[in-house]
Amino acid sequence: MHARPLIFASCLFGMVAHGGSAQWEEPPKSPEIHADGTATFRLNAPNATKVTLSASFVEDGKAPMERDEDGVWALTVGPLEPDIYGYTLDVDGLSVLDLANHDGRLGRWPESQFLVRADPPRAYEQADAPQGAVHLRRYASESLGVVRRMHVYTPPGYTPDTTYPVVYLLHGYGDTDSGWTTLGRAHIIADNLIAAGKIDPMVIVMPHGHAAPADLTVENWRGVRGGFETDLMADILPFVSANYSVATDVDNTAIVGLSMGGGQSLGVGLTRLDTFGWIGGYSSAVPDEDLEETFADVLSRPGKPRLLWVGCGTDDFLYERNTAFLAWLSENDVPHTAHITDGGHTWSVWRDYLEEFLPLLFRD
Amino acid sequence: MHARPLIFASCLFGMVAHGGSAQWEEPPKSPEIHADGTATFRLNAPNATKVTLSASFVEDGKAPMERDEDGVWALTVGPLEPDIYGYTLDVDGLSVLDLANHDGRLGRWPESQFLVRADPPRAYEQADAPQGAVHLRRYASESLGVVRRMHVYTPPGYTPDTTYPVVYLLHGYGDTDSGWTTLGRAHIIADNLIAAGKIDPMVIVMPHGHAAPADLTVENWRGVRGGFETDLMADILPFVSANYSVATDVDNTAIVGLSMGGGQSLGVGLTRLDTFGWIGGYSSAVPDEDLEETFADVLSRPGKPRLLWVGCGTDDFLYERNTAFLAWLSENDVPHTAHITDGGHTWSVWRDYLEEFLPLLFRD
Repeated sequence: MHARPLIFASCLFGMVAHGGSAQWEEPPKSPEIHADGTATFRLNAPNATKVTLSASFVEDGKAPMERDEDGVWALTVGPLEPDIYGYTLDVDGLSVLDLANHDGRLGRWPESQFLVRADPPRAYEQADAPQGAVHLRRYASESLGVVRRMHVYTPPGYTPDTTYPVVYLLHGYGDTDSGWTTLGRAHIIADNLIAAGKIDPMVIVMPHGHAAPADLTVENWRGVRGGFETDLMADILPFVSANYSVATDVDNTAIVGLSMGGGQSLGVGLTRLDTFGWIGGYSSAVPDEDLEETFADVLSRPGKPRLLWVGCGTDDFLYERNTAFLAWLSENDVPHTAHITDGGHTWSVWRDYLEEFLPLLFRD
Repeated sequence: MHARPLIFASCLFGMVAHGGSAQWEEPPKSPEIHADGTATFRLNAPNATKVTLSASFVEDGKAPMERDEDGVWALTVGPLEPDIYGYTLDVDGLSVLDLANHDGRLGRWPESQFLVRADPPRAYEQADAPQGAVHLRRYASESLGVVRRMHVYTPPGYTPDTTYPVVYLLHGYGDTDSGWTTLGRAHIIADNLIAAGKIDPMVIVMPHGHAAPADLTVENWRGVRGGFETDLMADILPFVSANYSVATDVDNTAIVGLSMGGGQSLGVGLTRLDTFGWIGGYSSAVPDEDLEETFADVLSRPGKPRLLWVGCGTDDFLYERNTAFLAWLSENDVPHTAHITDGGHTWSVWRDYLEEFLPLLFRD
């Protein structure tokens, strides 16, 4: 071994000399999660006249922050239940992310995020379980004429010598194919369920559900759904079976999604019963028109699918639509599982649903 | 085929009814990249008194935006040379991201990003080349006592039946292990170089270079470097060879990085000549103390490494430090390649360097 002198210390000073970014001066810590589950948010904005915290965990969704003499705005909330939370800050009417917080997301619904840990840890928290991998795969979608991306989870010890069952897991309108591995933590949930012996190793494919440009309007909405379905069936499924060691039979293929993705998974799955044997939807934009016509196949084929699982929280804005769909299933004697819980249209609910749903799949 | 009625149209209205996010009302488009390479930035901030664009591509790094009667601030700049650009907006002294732009990053140096396309496309632009995969891998670092993450690029057609050479590619101080596949586009550059026949398929490992908490101070800086080096040698290399079909001999192992990561790659690589045969640094925080002692092995072993490549732009704040290191190499008759170019401490330079560096590796 060589001696290891402090040869890089001056790098730090070099960076300071760089001065290319105002972010170099560390902003006040935000959020600071205290041991009792309370959280303190801070923003250095001396020139602002009003700063509010926008979040589901404060009353009415907004709470004013208070300015100190140095122009740092602060607010402490909670204690909060263990969960992953999103929030934004509102500065004189402008919605911004908390740039002191490195966790969060851009996109249609940008937000900063933080975790309040549970004891013992929840399935979505990173634990000591053996870790699978998340693959970012680009593929040429012939049906859409563009190169697109998907995320693919492979379980710990994945090997081409084994054939795995596969779940197609779809995101909601506000997300992309990265949603389920960032906010959703699907890979961590799967790792922990496998380690706990609650599920067998499986591959989880998370495609990009928007088949249209970002400037989506009501007018081209129809194109979105049709476009995604074609992409899924003509491009994604063949790409997955060509690149991963997955079973392609109906007994080993599941589809599930949340919100818009729940509408897609139910709509696509229930009209393709020879492909998808296990079908679910979380807080779904469930089909609500022409049900008899659309789902004629479900009505005429008892025993298919193997599982039809519809989850929704009672505070969800889509709750009535889901209960209407469930009533229709009951009236038509379509076997299904209704999973009605507390909660709204939130990732907190969807992470729980995934944890409950995966162990139901691929059973005899 | 079933008829496919418009069963999801009402989903969109449901989302509007949801109203959970101010982002639902689409903000004015920003940035808008025009055909002539000019770019228009917009921010809806009626209550702001001053909004500026902060970016390397405007004079002095800041340019005021102009408010229209509706409170939308706008500025058109350029035409800009084809490249990927970063920027932030300054609203009454508060640095914010452009939330109308879904591309960008959080982290130590958050910024919004956009691409000005080149014709023909540059290597970092997505083209029609066969696509490799990017794996997000978590691993238990025994040396650091935590579960950490790395990114791993596998080339198109990757198969365990082939043994690939491997490059350890390190990020800079402002980034994480995702830096090289977001801003750096290393996977796209590699895909395109492979398709062009300029490199053979290789595996590229992008570890997380910060071995310390986010509240890094000068006092614990020493720990960072030592911590990363131990993590790399004791945990990362064994994890990679256990999980990927890579060669482990010196002739098939390269290490390179940018800025802090360049300091790491030169410092680690040049003191471990039996592990790394191909060593590079881009805009590196090059070692500048105790060189004779630290690099005694380099001085005494002619022919090692196979490549020592030091790249730096003349406008880089680390330029003098790099030229001093290069002078020391020359004075001591250490074979090396000095790659001095235009440019500063920017991703534009580092993407070019990667494109030029990879084809030099693993040659006879």
